Amino acid sequence: MGKGEQTRERILEKAAVLFNRQGFAGSSMADVMHATGLRKGGIYRHFESKEALALEAFDHAVQRVRVRFVAALRDRHDAVARLRAIVGVFREYAVDPPMPGGCPVMNTAIETDDGNPELRARARAVMEEWRAMVRRTVERGQERGEVRPEVDGDALASVCISLLEGGIMMSKLYHDPVHLLRAVDHLDRHVQEQVRV
Amino acid sequence: MGKGEQTRERILEKAAVLFNRQGFAGSSMADVMHATGLRKGGIYRHFESKEALALEAFDHAVQRVRVRFVAALRDRHDAVARLRAIVGVFREYAVDPPMPGGCPVMNTAIETDDGNPELRARARAVMEEWRAMVRRTVERGQERGEVRPEVDGDALASVCISLLEGGIMMSKLYHDPVHLLRAVDHLDRHVQEQVRV
Repeated sequence: MGKGEQTRERILEKAAVLFNRQGFAGSSMADVMHATGLRKGGIYRHFESKEALALEAFDHAVQRVRVRFVAALRDRHDAVARLRAIVGVFREYAVDPPMPGGCPVMNTAIETDDGNPELRARARAVMEEWRAMVRRTVERGQERGEVRPEVDGDALASVCISLLEGGIMMSKLYHDPVHLLRAVDHLDRHVQEQVRV
Repeated sequence: MGKGEQTRERILEKAAVLFNRQGFAGSSMADVMHATGLRKGGIYRHFESKEALALEAFDHAVQRVRVRFVAALRDRHDAVARLRAIVGVFREYAVDPPMPGGCPVMNTAIETDDGNPELRARARAVMEEWRAMVRRTVERGQERGEVRPEVDGDALASVCISLLEGGIMMSKLYHDPVHLLRAVDHLDRHVQEQVRV
């Protein structure tokens, strides 16, 4: 990695944490300068605007979450094991979040639902990816007789994602992992008792 | 209500919607002036700062949610009927939210978790109130033999609130009530199948 590329990566890393903690509207370019230790020119050499930086910083933050799913799903083929692994990612998340400041998708969804359409579109695209991950797991499990035929994969995705995101919000509000862990326990039991054949 | 009081109410009403939609950091006093049609002096006559206005606007927004619970719980005494009524508030919420911009408690929790301690304390106080509402309903139901003795009221509160808040977030992201309605359906079934004796 060249020096310019290293600087670019450092800006992204620091800006991702900053935006995820303070929000996009709550972070100024002065905050980015402070967090990176760079002058304005050093940042604008790599990103043409705060908006452009925010989009790439969002992708950077989401990638930190995504690798946790990839690791948890490796070598798991049974649909119920995969669903439990997806939910189980949040046990680790509760005590060692991949990104300071909570879930970048929820934070961006909440902040941009009445503004910033480009960032909002990115949050929706990642939400689509997560919903599809659950839905496809259910569908494959049904084809192989591992998941009950009456389970609606898209409805299960809504419930899993809503409950885990809400759990992250509550745990952050109280600085207490218990709420997210209760969400994980509830879903794990639901998968074993109502989803598994 | 005197003219001054009317003006104060109008500022609170408009500011509550503005802050709930755009966030505290994302709303300027110029936005408040625009929304209320008042000049700066007219606003500062009633609220000494944006911070002071935000605190009262938050209370105003929460009150709009609170009256929905009060109405839903009126004349319901059985614990299971009360739990189903609390959850059922969100069926109406999905298509006719009490406040534009989503849940003021979640929005404030997300925006202020790394800043603005006074607003954050208010969000926590309301969260305490909601958790206590579920927990006490469970405890009374257990005393009267309406709720299974093994149900943990505080854990049920975490799951209900997380799932409903997450459902509001997803439904707002997609402008589609289906996600929140799925959250309601899941909880209603859970209460009937796992909580009721």
